[in-house]
Amino acid sequence: MDDRTVVVGAGVVGTTAAWVAARDHVADEVVLVDPDPGSGASWVAGGMLAPITEAWPGERPLLELGAASLRRWPAFADAVEQASGRPVGLRREGTLAVVVDSADREDLDRIVGHLQAWGRDAERLTGRETRRREPALGPAVRAGLAVPDDLAVDNRLLLAALRAAAERAGVVVRRESVVGVTESRGAVSGVELRSGERLGAERVVVAAGAWSASLHPALAGLVRPVKGEILRVRARAGSLPPPTRTVRASVAGRAVYAVPRDGGRLVLGATQYEAGFNADVTVGGVRDLLADAERVLPGIADYALEETAASFRPGTADNLPVLGALPGAPGGLLACFGHGRGGILLTALTADVVADLLAGRPVPAESAAASASRVATLEVSS
Amino acid sequence: MDDRTVVVGAGVVGTTAAWVAARDHVADEVVLVDPDPGSGASWVAGGMLAPITEAWPGERPLLELGAASLRRWPAFADAVEQASGRPVGLRREGTLAVVVDSADREDLDRIVGHLQAWGRDAERLTGRETRRREPALGPAVRAGLAVPDDLAVDNRLLLAALRAAAERAGVVVRRESVVGVTESRGAVSGVELRSGERLGAERVVVAAGAWSASLHPALAGLVRPVKGEILRVRARAGSLPPPTRTVRASVAGRAVYAVPRDGGRLVLGATQYEAGFNADVTVGGVRDLLADAERVLPGIADYALEETAASFRPGTADNLPVLGALPGAPGGLLACFGHGRGGILLTALTADVVADLLAGRPVPAESAAASASRVATLEVSS
Repeated sequence: MDDRTVVVGAGVVGTTAAWVAARDHVADEVVLVDPDPGSGASWVAGGMLAPITEAWPGERPLLELGAASLRRWPAFADAVEQASGRPVGLRREGTLAVVVDSADREDLDRIVGHLQAWGRDAERLTGRETRRREPALGPAVRAGLAVPDDLAVDNRLLLAALRAAAERAGVVVRRESVVGVTESRGAVSGVELRSGERLGAERVVVAAGAWSASLHPALAGLVRPVKGEILRVRARAGSLPPPTRTVRASVAGRAVYAVPRDGGRLVLGATQYEAGFNADVTVGGVRDLLADAERVLPGIADYALEETAASFRPGTADNLPVLGALPGAPGGLLACFGHGRGGILLTALTADVVADLLAGRPVPAESAAASASRVATLEVSS
Repeated sequence: MDDRTVVVGAGVVGTTAAWVAARDHVADEVVLVDPDPGSGASWVAGGMLAPITEAWPGERPLLELGAASLRRWPAFADAVEQASGRPVGLRREGTLAVVVDSADREDLDRIVGHLQAWGRDAERLTGRETRRREPALGPAVRAGLAVPDDLAVDNRLLLAALRAAAERAGVVVRRESVVGVTESRGAVSGVELRSGERLGAERVVVAAGAWSASLHPALAGLVRPVKGEILRVRARAGSLPPPTRTVRASVAGRAVYAVPRDGGRLVLGATQYEAGFNADVTVGGVRDLLADAERVLPGIADYALEETAASFRPGTADNLPVLGALPGAPGGLLACFGHGRGGILLTALTADVVADLLAGRPVPAESAAASASRVATLEVSS
């Protein structure tokens, strides 16, 4: 048996897992397999590290997981930057949640109440106060919530840095498709590639996001694709400058966010559809995103529209990731998927969980809600 | 002196000119020079062959030029297909011009009057009648005009076919930038490339569209960039099918068109800005195009947005092309630019004009309005 760990999927989660495995010398060889590394949901992301403004009633476990990961983010960012010699683009300006309709204003009040009950820092602002902080906000903004602790990271810089860190640590990246995890006598024996080649391994980390469910019968139905569309826009000469903080808004009940990037850029997102693996960016999706974003940030009308993209967030029945050994799965198979729309945020916590899992240590107590041991109780989707 | 003809610019006009020159053996060698052949305004086009629905009061010379070119289009399409062995995607389903506002309905009445006065075929339709012909039209459409003679062509298939025809005829394509036309004793001596290389030629055809004005002092100010944005959308499984005819609409005074392509695709266009050579596709431009197109064809909300693109139509002071030898220019320099938003339509006529110019024959009388001899009277733009 080869002393090899295979990680399937080179998004932020899989690349982090491979880096951690190589860094911690868990095997003679760590191989990261992906037909197109860094091209999936990790590429088409806002990069928000914003568990607080993402929280709403009923999602407390996700908020707690997110908060546990956010606490780890500054150190995680430092570690990735050190290991890679590259910036990850962590932004510490904080987040403003804003609303434009009275009905949404009531939502905001409810969220403030919940956050305060949970002991989270959040400051209620009038429309005028939001514009004082971010002059890019338009007159339609009626109220807001300043959440200084909700940060953001440049997901594309992060992907490049993680990849560099992994390669520096000795990870071998193979641009191939994995069609399935192979097993022998109750334990994983490796993976089978689309080419027909079998790659032997003592341990397989499945971090293939929305594609994970097809890789082994024990994973079937645990994760489904949730399509998200984003737009990338850029301020032009003479444009109003973009906001410096992440802006999250509710417009007529629809969520929209604008996450600043360097170079006057904003990532606008995100629609959500449950429609299988169809990656079309739709006219209606773009129309709604632009209309909602312009309502909040009118100056973007003059911005350049640089990119439209869609990807598949890996959704689970309870909106929480699945991390660890699965009941009913062969030994040596570690699940590491189902991060939903929070993959970038949850990567820092996932890094620690993966390190513990690979070392056979207990995982952080804060990650308990994401434990793979719960899957017997998860309602599977087909 | 080399017996060589250089054509500067490999859009539809330049590629046609090079093909004609090689086909007619006007020189030992015909060289077509462009840093990125087929990437400019010819690529980012609707491909309408629609002089009638494009006409409005005051643009009769352009209508007549367009009509003269449209008459040549079926034979031109055949010739290109024969010479290249490739389809050009000529569509003969005709055009519907529609309006959604009462004010625009009056415009339509005025246009019908003009067209009938000019003896053009055009049938006035009620909103209901337009929907009977094209069920993709939405309830907002109040009235229309059926123009069976206004056709369309797939500009990208056309570019590929012209390129193949030119190469089959012996044209040498060089992917380089021309920085200027060189001259010696009152006649062109060739062109200078960005690399510094000089390419000798007895004759230089300047077909560089909006970029033509910088290539020789005699061309300065004759043509300026007029930016146009287009979108390409595609019907998805379960979408309402696209119209089979070209649909031109006026929505709140703004023009929008939808030109069918094979595979359930539509080209939506086009915004127009006078803003130099800035190729940004703007948020506001996309928002307006989508909103106007959806008003006319509501089913496209569900379509995939496949592409957004901007390019520079070559605009002249009187909106007519400049074809032929220019007063004050060195001998052997032939202007072949300024086709504005009608470059695809006018290519068929331009092919005949270029053939005559290269052979030293009189050009077709119908092309008189485009003669370069008028440039002394053209108001130049800086």
